Amino acid sequence: MQAVEQPERRVERYLHEHIPLSAAMGVQVKMATIERVQLAAPLAPNINHHETVFGGSAVALATLSAWTLLHLRLEQTGLDAQLVIQRSSMEYERPIPGDFEAICRFADDFAWERFRTTLERRGRSRLTLSAHLVHSAHRMASFEGDFVALR
Amino acid sequence: MQAVEQPERRVERYLHEHIPLSAAMGVQVKMATIERVQLAAPLAPNINHHETVFGGSAVALATLSAWTLLHLRLEQTGLDAQLVIQRSSMEYERPIPGDFEAICRFADDFAWERFRTTLERRGRSRLTLSAHLVHSAHRMASFEGDFVALR
Repeated sequence: MQAVEQPERRVERYLHEHIPLSAAMGVQVKMATIERVQLAAPLAPNINHHETVFGGSAVALATLSAWTLLHLRLEQTGLDAQLVIQRSSMEYERPIPGDFEAICRFADDFAWERFRTTLERRGRSRLTLSAHLVHSAHRMASFEGDFVALR
Repeated sequence: MQAVEQPERRVERYLHEHIPLSAAMGVQVKMATIERVQLAAPLAPNINHHETVFGGSAVALATLSAWTLLHLRLEQTGLDAQLVIQRSSMEYERPIPGDFEAICRFADDFAWERFRTTLERRGRSRLTLSAHLVHSAHRMASFEGDFVALR
């Protein structure tokens, strides 16, 4: 009997294989559902000259969390679509002095249905996702990204 | 007689030592002046599942180019200030299918003087910098970042 791989391990393996920067950043997948994706990264490979998290690492982890959530939703829907990021913004609220996580949540069924039906009808659809970065249970940064799916 | 190190090599060594993600991304410093910073990165360590540049790598390189320009300007001014990013936005205009560069230019002497005098008087000052990503001589993405210097 073959062991069933946990969804978190499957997604983590996918990210490390296909987006090698995620492996260089030490990204671990803590949760990977269609309503919540939570990614963790250690400080060491993402440190800057102030010994806090490099802004580029912070925005990369947030981008990855939102992309992963949308990728899982498209996979579950069975829609074979290419997903690209069109625009993003990031508010850096506080320097992050240690290990950090990116959390992307999405539970807007109405927006999802509109996105899905537009994609089916027109072959192209856009969705905005939010994520935030957390360190020691405090919010440190906020991210918003517009993603476009193309069939 | 000791050889004089080129400014590009000095800045590249600084980035790789203090921001290890820049080494993992394979960042090379092509130009490092207070009016223009140009950073290059190869596709391989920054690739995604579509075999184009991962959005997180793209925004990280742009962030690094703007931060480096401001860091060089502060260094030249002799002002010992801590530099943090406060906000950034990125427009991804086209997928980047190969090696890419981030170019940050700044030649607004009036804005620089205002930034510098505010930093000296109040111990805190903010400046907005723009950068863009280039592949095969075409613009692929635009970045804008607000940086805050603190004494």
